[in-house]
Amino acid sequence: MDRLECLFCSGKYPLNVYETFCPRCHEPMLISYPPRQRTFALDQKLSLEKYKSFLPLARVDENLSLGEGGTPLVPLERIRRKHNFPPVYAKNETVNPTQSFKDRGTAVAVQKAAALGVRTIGTLSTGNMAGSTAAYGAKAGLKTVVLLKDDMPDDKIRAAGIFGPVLVKVRADYGELFARSLELGGRCGIYFMNSIDPLRIEGYKVTGYEIFRQLGGRVPGYVFVPASSGGHLIGLMRAFFDLRSERLAAGFPVFVGVQASGCSPIARAFAAGRERVTRVRRAETIAHAISNPAPPGGTLTLKLIRENGGMVMAVTDPEILAAQRELAELEGIFADPASATALAALTKLSRRRRLSLKDEVVLVITGSGLKSLETAKLQDIPVRKIPLSRLEKTLRSIGA
Amino acid sequence: MDRLECLFCSGKYPLNVYETFCPRCHEPMLISYPPRQRTFALDQKLSLEKYKSFLPLARVDENLSLGEGGTPLVPLERIRRKHNFPPVYAKNETVNPTQSFKDRGTAVAVQKAAALGVRTIGTLSTGNMAGSTAAYGAKAGLKTVVLLKDDMPDDKIRAAGIFGPVLVKVRADYGELFARSLELGGRCGIYFMNSIDPLRIEGYKVTGYEIFRQLGGRVPGYVFVPASSGGHLIGLMRAFFDLRSERLAAGFPVFVGVQASGCSPIARAFAAGRERVTRVRRAETIAHAISNPAPPGGTLTLKLIRENGGMVMAVTDPEILAAQRELAELEGIFADPASATALAALTKLSRRRRLSLKDEVVLVITGSGLKSLETAKLQDIPVRKIPLSRLEKTLRSIGA
Repeated sequence: MDRLECLFCSGKYPLNVYETFCPRCHEPMLISYPPRQRTFALDQKLSLEKYKSFLPLARVDENLSLGEGGTPLVPLERIRRKHNFPPVYAKNETVNPTQSFKDRGTAVAVQKAAALGVRTIGTLSTGNMAGSTAAYGAKAGLKTVVLLKDDMPDDKIRAAGIFGPVLVKVRADYGELFARSLELGGRCGIYFMNSIDPLRIEGYKVTGYEIFRQLGGRVPGYVFVPASSGGHLIGLMRAFFDLRSERLAAGFPVFVGVQASGCSPIARAFAAGRERVTRVRRAETIAHAISNPAPPGGTLTLKLIRENGGMVMAVTDPEILAAQRELAELEGIFADPASATALAALTKLSRRRRLSLKDEVVLVITGSGLKSLETAKLQDIPVRKIPLSRLEKTLRSIGA
Repeated sequence: MDRLECLFCSGKYPLNVYETFCPRCHEPMLISYPPRQRTFALDQKLSLEKYKSFLPLARVDENLSLGEGGTPLVPLERIRRKHNFPPVYAKNETVNPTQSFKDRGTAVAVQKAAALGVRTIGTLSTGNMAGSTAAYGAKAGLKTVVLLKDDMPDDKIRAAGIFGPVLVKVRADYGELFARSLELGGRCGIYFMNSIDPLRIEGYKVTGYEIFRQLGGRVPGYVFVPASSGGHLIGLMRAFFDLRSERLAAGFPVFVGVQASGCSPIARAFAAGRERVTRVRRAETIAHAISNPAPPGGTLTLKLIRENGGMVMAVTDPEILAAQRELAELEGIFADPASATALAALTKLSRRRRLSLKDEVVLVITGSGLKSLETAKLQDIPVRKIPLSRLEKTLRSIGA
């Protein structure tokens, strides 16, 4: 039987999809596994099937899958040469069914929800989470409720609303809404699979196994991950814990959590040597997807990062925009500002710390720039306008 | 040495990336292969490497790839049950690096361009093609020019412009611009890889091989493909020609090209029993990605469809909107209107023709609804607005 575990007090509890936080410590709990032999099943078709023995799933129902995972690990050779970086790769999580890493977590949470007979699921979101949860809810035929911030723009609402969830805009502080949704969800029979849901976090592990496999069975030197609630980073770290404990891999990457300077509660606590993450007052950054002033998994993230030689950094909006442009212009990847923080942080770190050429670096690209075209307005994109009669002259000036 | 072949006059010519049409027939030419043993290399990492012996590529350069292909084939079980369809699958081409099937073709064309020492590439586009070509051009470090229609909205321009191509809005008829770009490209040393470029079409074959493999080595009964210029449909048909000629598969799918009633030159010619596709006057449909009043590959498409027992259908805008909603609400796939035509056509055909339950049906989903959120405005998406104090009551009414 799957259990939940608090890494602060070591308390263990039976798995209950309506519980996220330790009743004693109020920190997020993680799935705890009984000791068992775990192996890859690489001949399987679905990503979740390949890594099922590492997941809290007795079986994988193909009819609940949208084909998530199996995303490309793309060598960033032109960026590497420009900056004289060690080998650097983008794990491009935008190549997922709803264009973000969230699908990995939603897929596992929905598989489990269906197996347990849950009928209604929910989430609260400012963007990617809404679309992902609504899509998987639709696929599974589950009633799905999405709580939205009061000021969410119509375009973003449509991208989730097309799947037919119940959409509710709530006038409330986001942190308060997060806590209330979990509390009320349990009482009303709605499984809120929010950002640090324990099952969701298990889904993110699969990304880590894939990176390991795509590197030919090597552990990268560094993994840069945009950090908001902390759930994604925790999941990726757990993947490499698993690989180590199963003796599939030796060593452990340096994990670098990255936040935007305009909202960096985890990076601040890290820099100040504090044990707990505290709420920041102002959140002002173009990296909306990681703008969370009171990250519910922040303190747990900090603990795991510290215990495993990682670090948390912050990068400024201009650094983010420059990195976004570089990923697009040199490597053909249109990352959202939140994802571009990974490259911005690598660039910054490489100035402070000598990176070994043997250290392979992985940047996790979490979401697509297509979903935040409004920030692309901040990029300079010139357009020439000509009549057809001027086409030849124009093309001659462009061609060889 | 690779050659080009005209299927109308059987003329053969050496491959020249600046030539697309037969000098005699003015119809699109296709790549012609010397007789050789062709096999899958499934242990390879990149999709193009797996099927390289079927492609006009001597080698595949990993540094020019964005990890295109390997897209999910998703069983649409809820739609199947609702309509009592035979087994039906979505080949979800939106799970590609720039969210459309175009990446398959661009990847092959750019590999070849780089191998031949081409320095400048170009395309003309109303959307997906621009983003795909600009992304791969950036990845390869090729100078890239994208010709745009004069009325292209800023949001769509940014989605391609972020990659740093030279963007040129040209005041001209689209069909005329298409012809002029190819003509001037040859003179100015710019390889215009437009919609029916022979190398691009080869890239689309890979989708067909993947479908065959994902079905466990079976040939589907029907393949529904949204049809604009005809290039995608031709490529998919060629895949199954290859499988048959290499004796990897027996049989051939019924290919169904689908157009929007508001712009259906190929479907009209098919229905009228004509041999040639002629320009339609008005193009008025929400399915912008397949709204091409003078498809340059139309007549070739018609010929191949006729010779191989296929058909071309047209569906109306209301049918498209209903299919788009059904794909989203029942299966969690947000297709653009052009892609939704595939399901609309299956629904229509199933009323006219008894589909055998043994016939597996594949719908090719070509582009993401995210890129045409403006049409999602036509879908009814209700949003409730409440204060936090009403949350409990609201959730109780939604939950079990």
